[in-house]
Formats: sequence, structure tokens, C-alpha cells
Amino acid sequence: MISPLLTDLYQLTMAFGYWKLGMHEREAVFHQIFRKQPFNGDYSVACGLETVVEFLQDWHFADEDLAYLQGLNTLNGSSLFLPEFLEYLRNLRFSCDIDAIPEGTLVFPNEPLLRVKGPLLQCQLIESTLLNIINFQTLVATKASRVCRAALGDAVLEFGLRRAQGPDGALSASRASYVGGVAATSNVLAGKKYNIPVSGTHAHSWVTAFPDEMTAFSAYAKVMPNNCVLLVDTYNTLQGVHHAIEVGKMLRAEGSELLGIRLDSGDMAALSIQARRLLDEAGFTQTKIIASNSLDESVIKDLKKNNSVISVWGVGTHLATAYDAPALDGVYKLSALRNEQGEWEYKIKLSEQAVKISNPGIHQVRRFVQDGVCVMDIIYDVRQGISESNPECVSLGSPHTLIQLDHFDASYDLLQPVFRQGKRVSAQESIHAIRARTLQQVEQFLKIPHETAYPVGLERQLHQVKQNLIADVLKKNKSEPLNE
Amino acid sequence: MISPLLTDLYQLTMAFGYWKLGMHEREAVFHQIFRKQPFNGDYSVACGLETVVEFLQDWHFADEDLAYLQGLNTLNGSSLFLPEFLEYLRNLRFSCDIDAIPEGTLVFPNEPLLRVKGPLLQCQLIESTLLNIINFQTLVATKASRVCRAALGDAVLEFGLRRAQGPDGALSASRASYVGGVAATSNVLAGKKYNIPVSGTHAHSWVTAFPDEMTAFSAYAKVMPNNCVLLVDTYNTLQGVHHAIEVGKMLRAEGSELLGIRLDSGDMAALSIQARRLLDEAGFTQTKIIASNSLDESVIKDLKKNNSVISVWGVGTHLATAYDAPALDGVYKLSALRNEQGEWEYKIKLSEQAVKISNPGIHQVRRFVQDGVCVMDIIYDVRQGISESNPECVSLGSPHTLIQLDHFDASYDLLQPVFRQGKRVSAQESIHAIRARTLQQVEQFLKIPHETAYPVGLERQLHQVKQNLIADVLKKNKSEPLNE
Repeated sequence: MISPLLTDLYQLTMAFGYWKLGMHEREAVFHQIFRKQPFNGDYSVACGLETVVEFLQDWHFADEDLAYLQGLNTLNGSSLFLPEFLEYLRNLRFSCDIDAIPEGTLVFPNEPLLRVKGPLLQCQLIESTLLNIINFQTLVATKASRVCRAALGDAVLEFGLRRAQGPDGALSASRASYVGGVAATSNVLAGKKYNIPVSGTHAHSWVTAFPDEMTAFSAYAKVMPNNCVLLVDTYNTLQGVHHAIEVGKMLRAEGSELLGIRLDSGDMAALSIQARRLLDEAGFTQTKIIASNSLDESVIKDLKKNNSVISVWGVGTHLATAYDAPALDGVYKLSALRNEQGEWEYKIKLSEQAVKISNPGIHQVRRFVQDGVCVMDIIYDVRQGISESNPECVSLGSPHTLIQLDHFDASYDLLQPVFRQGKRVSAQESIHAIRARTLQQVEQFLKIPHETAYPVGLERQLHQVKQNLIADVLKKNKSEPLNE
Repeated sequence: MISPLLTDLYQLTMAFGYWKLGMHEREAVFHQIFRKQPFNGDYSVACGLETVVEFLQDWHFADEDLAYLQGLNTLNGSSLFLPEFLEYLRNLRFSCDIDAIPEGTLVFPNEPLLRVKGPLLQCQLIESTLLNIINFQTLVATKASRVCRAALGDAVLEFGLRRAQGPDGALSASRASYVGGVAATSNVLAGKKYNIPVSGTHAHSWVTAFPDEMTAFSAYAKVMPNNCVLLVDTYNTLQGVHHAIEVGKMLRAEGSELLGIRLDSGDMAALSIQARRLLDEAGFTQTKIIASNSLDESVIKDLKKNNSVISVWGVGTHLATAYDAPALDGVYKLSALRNEQGEWEYKIKLSEQAVKISNPGIHQVRRFVQDGVCVMDIIYDVRQGISESNPECVSLGSPHTLIQLDHFDASYDLLQPVFRQGKRVSAQESIHAIRARTLQQVEQFLKIPHETAYPVGLERQLHQVKQNLIADVLKKNKSEPLNE
């Protein structure tokens, strides 16, 4: 259970302001997007929605939360919040609509992963938590997909717990890694909580706990004959392989098999080639070689290029922390708000950087498919709709390019209903179904080359609404025009 | 509460093995160290111990944990664990001794942050969780200290929740950032849970929710006259400063003050200089300028160099994820184990890399002080002790250098008792006291230049024990000598 206090204080001070001004129940629309593909990649994998659902289904302020808020003061010692506001929070239950792109879907910069529609105050209070959950899980699912691609079909195991960013950093990372394509995790709690396969055998400490390596390996084989993967580099890797082969023979004599050996240091390409030869010569052709030691997609690619014969990849730190780009730049922006007369007013945030100007409206994303492969996404306004026969859009990458998409085989909307008036309306998906979606979408995506960024456009009319609104806002705020 | 299942599966398979072989209650010693200063820094800040204590005080396997373990199978379908082993786990309570370096202490590579002594099985089961907690919090406390140093005494606020690695990634980061020196966090739950000051006012969405910026600012000032910091870059930063000044005059007429303005985009040095001038000219000399927008210690240093006039720094993503080095390379190694006769046997793990060879024994760390500044740490074996008058050590950085430390003003042991036979024996420290320790130690450390790495040595006799053990292990495992 995640507390509703897992939010930034400014969400609560703004909520208080909206409440005091009587604006708190005005209907608002916020969209959650990210701006840039992490890892200089060509796609991301949507992930984290089910964790968001769990959070929102139980979203309420407990007495101890309110007592804490009651105790917060401004710098001059007055209470930050009025007791009547805290009473309002006490009785508050989640009542927004949420539409989201299903987990395991490939997603691209600037398109909404999530649309939240409901009372302004509630939309605001949940912002930080939604960003926290979706940003990280999407980041790690994306990283996992990259690592699995580099492994070219070999199994990848996630080993990141000990270096992950806190207990939940580890749990979320295990979940997202599985969604992204890994086969199993070493994290037992993640296995239990998310129904992910778990994997593990022994560490160096097992070997050093015994007088010598042969004794340690024999002891392990004796107690775990059916889960026997031996870590061979505690003292000397090739010596370790010889010891493992001896133990493999003992296992075979008892009717079991040596499942694998694990390399955790040294020149992994050369060692794997030597180990494979020794194992094969001794008749252990089915014994797998597992590698671990600061692996990531680029190290795996290099090892593949250097003819390593590794069949299973244990990837820890670099996967669980998304080491080379440890944060996704997701944002959550107000794009529509009903005025006092109940009419929708569209909203925009400007910036000197065109990419940071938000998109007004109430959005849906239409994905277009040709020969079974997605070729373009168009963000459109649900009140204006989109031409079914001849959709036109303005590229968000290069804003002056009008794109007419005149032939496509199929198209479908990406945002699916998840909550209606605070009640979940979508069925819970199994994590295995989500993972299968990722694998299937990645396979399709890779069927055609992607030399330029996947096109995401703003539907032509929506683009015009945006331009008009920019002009309007600049006029109202009496400022100089911005360059887009 | 953190579940004992937050561990790697191999800890449980090893535990099962030790239990089956009757070795599970043999007394063992493990040390937790890290190998390399993160961020190419000159010190790290120990952090995370109190979270470890919370975890261990409540460490027990619940029925649902055991039911999950009971359901795990090997590849051939047999149960991974015997029911008798799970019964053993059911009745198990934590009974180890733990000694640790207090949080907020400056620490260096290769010295134990934590020593765990107790039944082999228990030492092993808690490894992954201890590494997870201490690695991340030490990393972020260290990063926070670097950011605060760059800010040269200005207040730093931690704003990382939305980009942090999961809910607890955010919470742990807020705690560790405060220990490292930040003044407050935006994370309300961290404020409540850890008694950290919280800070926040409003976001861009507040401004866009109103017809124009002046209306938005006036509305905020009206509802929060004593917590008024206005974010000025929603449409145009300098226009925003003018609007903020108008609102500041209204506030002053009502007896309140405009506390600050916040810059969140653009050329922060130039904008801060212009904003300061406008504020000063209008008589708002006490109004602070707060900056946020992908800040870290190097951006802050650059802004300082470019004469920015920023008085408060909001640091988010780069702090909470330790963006440029998002994992500390901490490890946890078996270094002593009683044999069947109850005698201590010292243990070592070899490696082709000298830095990865573990240190045998039961360790304490002695810190030496000259003129109030720490000058050297020596790792010694508690059974051998250390010469009080003429301590000699071999540098762990350059192993052939014998260092004689012949004059020093004072010395003290860093590892302090925390648990004895599973019961906490240390008092809980307030987070404010821990933070004060960090600030005081950093101040002392910076009194003298550190052109080379802070020296950490292995006490001379312990070094000899290690060399003998390396020779012994190589002989036993019939392998070639390693180069150290």
C-alpha cells in the first residue's frame, strides 16, 4: 500500500488553494508523457500501470496522515492548512476517470501514456506518485527489452537487488524487467509478489565456507542435485571448471545433471570458449554457461561479437538502475479545465524550448499499422475526432511538416479505459500476458528498419488549436512571441 | 516493514544447504565494504543503518512467505526446499551481533561499514537486503554532500520524488539526502516518516489553471500569504518576475512578504541576475531566488562561477537517482568461520584483480586524527589488536607500501555495537544528529587538501595473515599463483 502522502508538498498547497477558492471540484484533464527516448533508443515499453491501479484503489488519507499535515507550519509559525481542508481530505475518495496505454505496449515521446480526468484537486494530488511509478517502470522495462535484444534469444536473468535503489527500487525493477522480457529474477519477494519465476544457486561465500572448492561443489551437488549451477571463479576459473566437471560426473552417476556453471570475472569471451570446450570434451554438452559481472546490452553485444559461448546472461546493476540513463523524463501537464460555466477551456504551458510547450486538449492516440507493423501515431482531441479515411497531422519532431497518411491497413486507439469515476473498469492482466505483448510488439517493430525516429504527430485541427492558444496566451500575458 | 524474502534466491538455497549439512549455526563473520568512491569523489557518507535496524528488528518469515517457498520447484518438478527446513525458518529469529560505522561518518573504500557475526545461515540470508539498503543510502548521502558543498552554504532542497526509482527509491533518497546535508524535501511522506522538513508552494499547473499569470499569482498569495514562492517561468520568466513583484506589493500591503520566486528554465545565471535587480529595485531585497531544472553539483558550480544570484537550490533527478553513478559497488564477504571444533578459520575470496581479493579476519577500523582532522584508517583484526603507540599498516591502495604512523593526536574505533545476539544495543539517533555529524565531519575533512586518496591500510600482522592465507588457498586448490 502506497500512502497518498507520497506526493510533493506543492500538490497539497495547491490543493488547499483550489479548495479555498472553490475550484477543487472543477473538472480537469492531465496527460502524462515523456519527452525523450531513454538510452538513445528507438522505442520504450509502457510499464507500471498495474502498480498505479493498486495505489489508486486504496487511495485515502489516514488519520495519522492528517495529523501530520495538521502539524505543518509556515515560516511564521501559523498552520499551513486549515482544519476544514483536512476534514475535506479525510472524506475524499478517488473519483477520476483514467485511460492508459496497456503495459507492454511500445510507446514514443510526447504521446500520453495516461490521461486523468476528474476533479482538479484529485488530479493534482496523484501527480507525483503516478510519475514516480510510471517513469521508473517504463524506464526499466525499456532497458530490459534492450538487454534481451542484445542476448538474441538467450535467457536473461535479473540479478539487481543488491545494487538497486532501495527495497522498492529493486521490486519495481524486477517487475519491469520481466515485463521487458527477462526470464526470471533472483529477487524472491518480487517472485512472490508479482508471480515472476525466480532463479538462484550459490555465491562465492558458499565456496569459501568449505575447506576447498571441490569439497564445496560436492556438498552443493549433494544437497541440491536438481538445481546445480556451480560458480567457478572463487579461486581460479578454469580450475573451477575442472572441479565442476568432476562434480558433474558424480551427479550423473546419481541420475542428476549439472545444469550449468557460472562465470563472474575475467575475460568472459575467452573463458567461456575454454570452459565450453572442457565441458563438451567431458560429455557435458547440455551444461549451460551462465555469465554475470557488470553486464549490459553493449557488453553482451561485444561478447557475442567475440564469439563467446554463453547461454544465459545474469544482468544486475546496469538493468535494475538503468545505469546509463537512470531516470525517464516523464511529465504530467494540465491540458483542459472546465470554467465556472462548465465549458471546457484548453490549457497550455509555454517554454522557450518548443519541446517543452505542452499540448492542449483531451487526447487519444491513434496508432496506424501497415503490413502488421506500426508506422505512425497521431495524437488527436477526442471532442474533435480524427478523419478515419484521410488523417492528417503535424509532426511533433519537425513542427512545420504536414503529414498525410493516405494508406494504412488498420488503426486503433491506444488509450484504454482503466477507471471510471474512481472505479476500476479494466480487467487485471496477468504479468505473463503483459510480457507476451512486449515480446510480440518488439518482434513486429524490428521487422522494418527504423533509421529515423518513429513519427508521432499532432492531428491537424489539434495543431491549429494549439497555435491559436499560444497566440492567445501570449496576448493575455503581454509577452513577446516565442519561437517554435 | 521489509519482508525477509527481499533477498536473492541463492541466499535461501545456500541456507538450505548449510542447514542440510548441519553447518547452519556455525558462527561466521561477514563484512560489508564498498570498493570505489562514487562520483570520483574523495569521501562517502555512511548512511542507511537505521533502516537496516528496522528491517532486522522485525525479521521473521510469515506463513505466507513459507507457503510461497514451499511452492518453489526445481526444473524437474521436485520441491526446491524440504518442509523441515521451512519449519526451521518459521521458528527462526535474528540472533547475530552487528557492529557498524555510525551514519553520517565519512567512509572510504575497502573498510567495513558493517560487521555481522552470528550463525552462518542468518548472516547469509540478510546479505542482499543489507547491501540494497546501505549501498543506496550511502550513495545518495554522498551525492547530497557533494551538491551541498557546491552550493557553498546556500540551502539545498531535494525535489526528486517524480523521477526517483520507485516509491521507496524516493523515500530512501529523501532520508539520505537529508543526512548528506540538504535542508528539506518536497516528499511529504518522507517528511512524516523520517521527521525531515518539507517544502513546496506551487507548480506550472497552478498558473495554467487560471486565465492569466497575474490572476494565478494573486490567487496563490491570497490563499497562502505566509508560504508564497511564485514560479515565474510558465509563459515568460521576466514578465513573471514583474507579475511576482506586483503581487509582492499586494502581500506587503496586507502585512505579509513575498518569500521567493522560482526559476525553472532558461539561462539561470542571466535570469537570476536580472530578476535580482528587478526585485531589489522594487524593494524586495529579502525575496529569495530559488532555482530548479536538472541541477547537480557541476551545474551549481558553473552557475556560481557565472555570478548567478541564486539563494536556494532545488535538486531533483540528479540527486535522488545519483544520476552520474547510480549504484554503489558494495559487497559483503565471508571472512571468518568457526570449524567443527569451534576454532576460527579465516576465509578469503581470490580474484585476478587485487582489489577484488577479500580481507580475512574479524575486523575493526581505527581512525587516526591529527590537528582535529582524520588522516588515516587502519583495518585490524580484533583478535590480534593494533599497536597503540606505533601502528603499522600496508596500504590497500598500493600493497607494497608499509606505512608507519608515528605521530597522531588521537585515534578511535569506527565500528560501534548495534546488535548483540539479535537485540539492539545502540540508542536510536535522531536524523538531525546524524546530519549534524555529516556536516561537522565534512567541514573538518575539507580543512586540509586531499590531493591523493585518503589512506586506508591493513594492519601489518593482518596483512601477513592475508598473504599466508592466499598461499594456503592456492596450494589447496592446486592453482597458479595470482599477481597481487
